[in-house]
Amino acid sequence: MAETPRRAAGRRLQLPLLCLLLQGATAILFAVFVRYNRETDAALWHWGNHSNADNEFYFRYPSFQDVHAMIFVGFGFLMAFLQRYGFSSVGFTFLLAAFALQWSTLVQGFFYSFHGGHIYVGMESMINADFCAGAVLISFGAILGKTGPAQLLLMALLEVVLFGLNEFVLLSLLGVKDAGGSMTIHTFGAYFGLVLSWVLYKPQLEKSKHHQGSVYHSDLFAMIGTIFLWIFWPSFNSAPTTLGNGQHRTVLNTYYSLTASTLSTFALSALVGQDGRLDMVHVQNAALAGGVVVGTSAEMMLTPFGALAAGFLAGTVSTLGYKFFTPILESKIKVQDTCGVHNLHGMPGVLGALLGVLVAGLATHEAYGDGLESVFPLIAEGQRSAMSQAIHQLFGLFVTLIFASVGGCLGGLLLKLPFLDSPPDSQCYEDQIYWEVPGEHEDLAQGPLRAEEPDTQA
Amino acid sequence: MAETPRRAAGRRLQLPLLCLLLQGATAILFAVFVRYNRETDAALWHWGNHSNADNEFYFRYPSFQDVHAMIFVGFGFLMAFLQRYGFSSVGFTFLLAAFALQWSTLVQGFFYSFHGGHIYVGMESMINADFCAGAVLISFGAILGKTGPAQLLLMALLEVVLFGLNEFVLLSLLGVKDAGGSMTIHTFGAYFGLVLSWVLYKPQLEKSKHHQGSVYHSDLFAMIGTIFLWIFWPSFNSAPTTLGNGQHRTVLNTYYSLTASTLSTFALSALVGQDGRLDMVHVQNAALAGGVVVGTSAEMMLTPFGALAAGFLAGTVSTLGYKFFTPILESKIKVQDTCGVHNLHGMPGVLGALLGVLVAGLATHEAYGDGLESVFPLIAEGQRSAMSQAIHQLFGLFVTLIFASVGGCLGGLLLKLPFLDSPPDSQCYEDQIYWEVPGEHEDLAQGPLRAEEPDTQA
Amino acid sequence: MAETPRRAAGRRLQLPLLCLLLQGATAILFAVFVRYNRETDAALWHWGNHSNADNEFYFRYPSFQDVHAMIFVGFGFLMAFLQRYGFSSVGFTFLLAAFALQWSTLVQGFFYSFHGGHIYVGMESMINADFCAGAVLISFGAILGKTGPAQLLLMALLEVVLFGLNEFVLLSLLGVKDAGGSMTIHTFGAYFGLVLSWVLYKPQLEKSKHHQGSVYHSDLFAMIGTIFLWIFWPSFNSAPTTLGNGQHRTVLNTYYSLTASTLSTFALSALVGQDGRLDMVHVQNAALAGGVVVGTSAEMMLTPFGALAAGFLAGTVSTLGYKFFTPILESKIKVQDTCGVHNLHGMPGVLGALLGVLVAGLATHEAYGDGLESVFPLIAEGQRSAMSQAIHQLFGLFVTLIFASVGGCLGGLLLKLPFLDSPPDSQCYEDQIYWEVPGEHEDLAQGPLRAEEPDTQA
Repeated sequence: MAETPRRAAGRRLQLPLLCLLLQGATAILFAVFVRYNRETDAALWHWGNHSNADNEFYFRYPSFQDVHAMIFVGFGFLMAFLQRYGFSSVGFTFLLAAFALQWSTLVQGFFYSFHGGHIYVGMESMINADFCAGAVLISFGAILGKTGPAQLLLMALLEVVLFGLNEFVLLSLLGVKDAGGSMTIHTFGAYFGLVLSWVLYKPQLEKSKHHQGSVYHSDLFAMIGTIFLWIFWPSFNSAPTTLGNGQHRTVLNTYYSLTASTLSTFALSALVGQDGRLDMVHVQNAALAGGVVVGTSAEMMLTPFGALAAGFLAGTVSTLGYKFFTPILESKIKVQDTCGVHNLHGMPGVLGALLGVLVAGLATHEAYGDGLESVFPLIAEGQRSAMSQAIHQLFGLFVTLIFASVGGCLGGLLLKLPFLDSPPDSQCYEDQIYWEVPGEHEDLAQGPLRAEEPDTQA
Repeated sequence: MAETPRRAAGRRLQLPLLCLLLQGATAILFAVFVRYNRETDAALWHWGNHSNADNEFYFRYPSFQDVHAMIFVGFGFLMAFLQRYGFSSVGFTFLLAAFALQWSTLVQGFFYSFHGGHIYVGMESMINADFCAGAVLISFGAILGKTGPAQLLLMALLEVVLFGLNEFVLLSLLGVKDAGGSMTIHTFGAYFGLVLSWVLYKPQLEKSKHHQGSVYHSDLFAMIGTIFLWIFWPSFNSAPTTLGNGQHRTVLNTYYSLTASTLSTFALSALVGQDGRLDMVHVQNAALAGGVVVGTSAEMMLTPFGALAAGFLAGTVSTLGYKFFTPILESKIKVQDTCGVHNLHGMPGVLGALLGVLVAGLATHEAYGDGLESVFPLIAEGQRSAMSQAIHQLFGLFVTLIFASVGGCLGGLLLKLPFLDSPPDSQCYEDQIYWEVPGEHEDLAQGPLRAEEPDTQA
Repeated sequence: MAETPRRAAGRRLQLPLLCLLLQGATAILFAVFVRYNRETDAALWHWGNHSNADNEFYFRYPSFQDVHAMIFVGFGFLMAFLQRYGFSSVGFTFLLAAFALQWSTLVQGFFYSFHGGHIYVGMESMINADFCAGAVLISFGAILGKTGPAQLLLMALLEVVLFGLNEFVLLSLLGVKDAGGSMTIHTFGAYFGLVLSWVLYKPQLEKSKHHQGSVYHSDLFAMIGTIFLWIFWPSFNSAPTTLGNGQHRTVLNTYYSLTASTLSTFALSALVGQDGRLDMVHVQNAALAGGVVVGTSAEMMLTPFGALAAGFLAGTVSTLGYKFFTPILESKIKVQDTCGVHNLHGMPGVLGALLGVLVAGLATHEAYGDGLESVFPLIAEGQRSAMSQAIHQLFGLFVTLIFASVGGCLGGLLLKLPFLDSPPDSQCYEDQIYWEVPGEHEDLAQGPLRAEEPDTQA
C-alpha cells in the first residue's frame, strides 16, 4: 500500500466528518420541521372517532417491512457477489440507505406533506423514504467498487433531491401513475447511475479485473439478496397502491410476472451460455426483471396473462443484455456498469414505463368499473381520456430520463472533486482500502486437527 | 469432462426448449382461462358494498409472504448443504418453484375455482400454488444432485397434476381436513420423491461420494434455510385455515410443536452421535419435523400439551431415522434419499396424518363449541360422527400413499427417457455440469497482502 | 484431543439427559396448566359476538413474526462472526431459544395470565416468550464460546425465572413502562450475562485467542444477523404496545433512531480505526444500538428529532465502548465479553432507561391528549404525576440492575458445578468439542478440475 500518511489522514477524517455533518444537518431539520402525523401522534389520533383497527399501520406495515427487507437485505447481499467487496457491498448499502431514509423524509416531506410549516410523517412517508433509498442503491450498483463511502454519501445527497423533484413532477404535476416505480425508481436510479459511471470512467480498470469476479460462496451470498428481492417484490409494487383490490391485484400481477422472468432467464441463460451452462449473474439479476417491468402497470388491469408476457419479455431482454450489451456498453460507450443495472433496472424500467403507456391507453370504464376512480382518478373524473393518460405516462418517462441524465452528470462532476476518497484504478472492488479485513481462511486449517504436524513445509 | 460435442449441444438446447415450451403453454392457458377474482378485480370488487378492510388480502397476505419465503429461501438454502451443489440447490429450487406456481394455478384452478369457463385467482390460489410448489421441492430433495434441470421440470409437470388430483380427492370428495398438508404436501411429496428415486436408482453413486458431504460454510448456508423454515412454519400451517381463532390456534400449536422437536432433536442427536457430538444434518432437518407432524391437527383442538408431545415424538423419530434408517433405505431398499426427506417429511407426515385421525376422532361439541362448524363442518352439520371423520382421515392417508407411489413410478419412468440430461453417476452432486462455476478461493489468497512474497514455494 | 473416555461418556449423556428432563418437565406442566385463551380456543372465541377481524392475531402476528425472525435469525447469525463457532452460535441459539419459549410461557403465565388454576396462551404470551428468549440470548452473547450447551440450558432455566420476576416487579408492581425492554430485556440480559461471565472468568483464555476472531465469510454471515435485527427492530419495540397510534409511533421512532445509530457508528468507527478503516465489529453491533436505546421511550412522544438524537448517542457510545472499554473490561474488571453485549445492550439499555425517565417526566396532557390513557394510564387516571412516573422508571432501572447482578452471580455459581460440560480454556470458540465438523474446503480444491495434476508439491 504505497499510500502517503497525508492521504491516510485525509481518508481518516473524510467519512466521519461527512457522516457527522449530514447527521447534524438532518437532525436540526428534523427538530424544526418533522412532526408525527395524525396516525402516529397520541393526541391527534384520538381527535375524531375512529377505531384503532382503521390505523394505516395495519394496512401497510407488513408490506413496508417487506420493502425494508428488500432495501437492506436484498440490495446489500445481491451486490455481495464480488469476491472481495462483500463488506463494502453490505456495509455501504447499510450506510447509504440509512442516510437516504432521513434525507428523503425531509425532501419528500417538503413536496408532499408540508403543512403549516411542518412535515408530517407516518407509514406512507416511511415507505416513500425506503423507495427513494432503493433508487440510490440502484445507482450504487452501477458504480459498485469504484467509489469510496464519502463519495457515495455525496451522491445520495444529490440524488435524493433529484429523485424527489422528478417524482413530484410525475405524480403530482403530470398525474402519472407509477406505483412500483418503473420510472421514478428503476429508470431514474439506473440512468442516474449509468451517466454518473460514464463521467467517472476509469480507463485503467482492467488492473482490477482479477477482483471483478465472484467466488463460489460470494455467489451464494448474492443469491440471498436475489431471493429476498424476488419474494418480496409483490410487496414493493403494492406498498403504496390503493387499499383493497388495488394492493391485492398489484401483488398478484407482480407474483406472476416474476415467475415468467425466472423461466425466461433460465431459458436464455442456458441458450447463450458456453456448452449450455447457466450463468449465476443472469439468475441473480435477470430473474428479477419481472418485478421491474410491471412497476407501473401492476396496479392496473394488466390481466394475469399480461403479467406473464411482460415478465417473460423482461427476463429475456435482461439476460441478453448481460450477455451481449454490457460488454459493448463498456467498450464502446465507456460506461462501466458493475452490477449490470442497465439490464436489471434500466431496460426493464423503460419497458415497464412503455407497458404502463399501453395499459393506461387501453383503460375503459367497463374494465375498471367503480375501481377506475382509484387507479385513474383523472379519467374517472372526466378530466382526461385514456389516450391522454397514456401520453402523459409517456411524457413522464421522457422527463425521468432527462432528470436522471442531467442528475448523473452533476453527480459525476461532484464525485470527481479531487479531495474525495476515490480508490485508484488498480484497487477497485477491494474491501481493504476501507475496511479492516480478517484473513480469508481460519487458523484451523493449521489448527488443532493438524497440531501434531509442526511446520512440515519448513 | 469426456463429453461428446453432440451431448453438449443436446444439453444446450434441452433446458431452454423445455422452459420456453412450458412457459408458452401456461401463458396461452392463462390467456384463455385465468381471470382476476372478486377480491383482485377493480370492477368486481366494487360491486356490492364492502369495506376495503374486508379484502382477503389483509387476512392472508402476511402469512402468504412467510410461506413464500419458506418455499424459496427455506427449501433453497436448506438443500445448499452439499459442498458443490449450492448453485443447483438454490437455482433449481428457484426454477422449479417458479414453474410450479404457474402450472398449479392452472391445475388447482380447474379443480377449485373454475366457473363459467374461467379460473379465478387471488390470495387463496396463490397460497395453494405455493403449497403445491412445496410438495415438488420435497420430492426434489429426495433426488437432489442426481437429476438435471430438464428432468426436474418434467417431474414438476407431472407431480403438480397428481398433487392437485390427490388434494381434490381428499379435501373435496372425502371431506378430509389437512390445512398444513401433513398428507397432501409432506406425505405426498416425500413418497412421490422416494419412489421416483427408487426407479432412478444409481448403482454407481459411490463414485460421487466425495461430493455428497458438506463443508463448514455450506452447513451454515443450510442453516439459513432451516431457520427460515422453522420460524415461518406457523404461517404455513395456518395460511389456509379459517379466520379468527382458527389461524390463531394453528399458529400457536405449530409454534410449540416446533420447540419440542428442536429439543428432542438435540437430545437424540447428541445421544446417538459419536462421542456425544451433535450432527448438523439432524439439527438442519429433524428440528423441523414438529411443523410437519401437526400439519393436519394444528387447526384442531390439539391442546398446547398435545403440540409439545407431537413435536417431541416427531423430532425423535426423525433424528433416529437419519441415523439408523436412511443407510438401510439405501442399502436394502435401494432408495437413495439425498436430503433424507423420508425422515423430515415422510415419517412425520404419516405420523401427522395419524395424529389427525386421533384428534378428529376425539372431537366433541363441548370442546369446539360453535367453532366446530369451521373445523369440522360435516360433524357440525350432523352428516358425520367424529369416528366417521377419523376413518375418512385415515382413508385420506391411504389414498395419498397410493397417489404418491403410482405418481413416483410414473415420474421415474418419465425421467428415465434416454435423451434427458441425467448426470452420470460419477458426476452427481456437482454444479459444474449445469453451471458456470467460479473458483472457490479468491485471488486475494495470493493477492495484495502477499504480493511481496513471490513464489516462496518454488 | 486428550480426553478421557469417561469425560466423553459424561458429555454424551449430559446434554441429552438435560434436554429430555427439561422437555419432560415443561410438557407435564403444560398438560396441567396451559390452556388456549379466548382468542385461540374454538369454543371460547365464539362466545359473545365479535368479528373474526377483531382477533388479536391480525393486529400482532406480523410483528410477532418479525420478532421471531430476530430471535432465531438475528441473534443466531450475529453471533456466527467467530471463525469456528458458527455451528454453536446458530445451533445453541436455536436450542436455548426453543427451550426458553416453553419455559417462559410457564413462568410468565404464572405471573400474568393465571386464572382459575390455568395459564391462558395466545399471541401476547408468544410475543412475551420470544422477548424473554431475547434476554437469554443477550446473556449468551457475553459467554459465547466459553460454555457448553448443558451449561447454557441451566443458565436459561434460571434466567427465565428471574426475567419473569423482574419484569413482573417493573410492569405490574411499579407501573413502569418498558415496551421494547430497554430495562427488562437489554439491561437485564446484558448485566446478567456480564456478571455471569465475571464469575466464570477464564484466566487462560488467551490460549484460544487464535479462534476468537472472524474470517471474511463469517463476518458476512454475521451481517445477515445484523441486518435482520436492524430491519425488524421497529416490530420488536412495537409488538406489545397499544394498538393504533401506539404501535405506529413506536415503529416510526425506532426506525429513525436506527438510521442515526448507523450513521454515528460509521462515523466513529472510521474515526477511531487504524488509517480510518471501518471495523466490521462496530458495524455489526453498534449500528443496532439505536433500537436498544429507544426500547423504553419509543412508544412515548419522543418526537422524530428525539429519536435521531437518541440513536446518534447510542451508536457513538456503543462504538467507543467496543474500541476503548471492552479491553479494559477484560483486563481490569475480569469480565470477558465475547460479543460485547455491554456495548450493544448494557450501556444503550441503561441510556434507554434514563431516556425513558426523561421522556416520562416531560409527559403532559397537552402532548398526549386522549392518548395519555394508553401510554401512561396512571398519570391519565391522576394516580401519578409525570415526575412520579419518572421516579418509578428510574427505580425500575435500579431494580433491574439488582436482579441482573444477583441473578448473574447465582447463574455463575450454577454453571461452575464441576460435572458440567465446560470447555477447557484452550478449546474455547471451537465447534469441534460439541459438533461433528466437516472439513473447511471442499474436496474439489483437489478434485475434478485439478484431477490431472497429481501431487505436484510432492
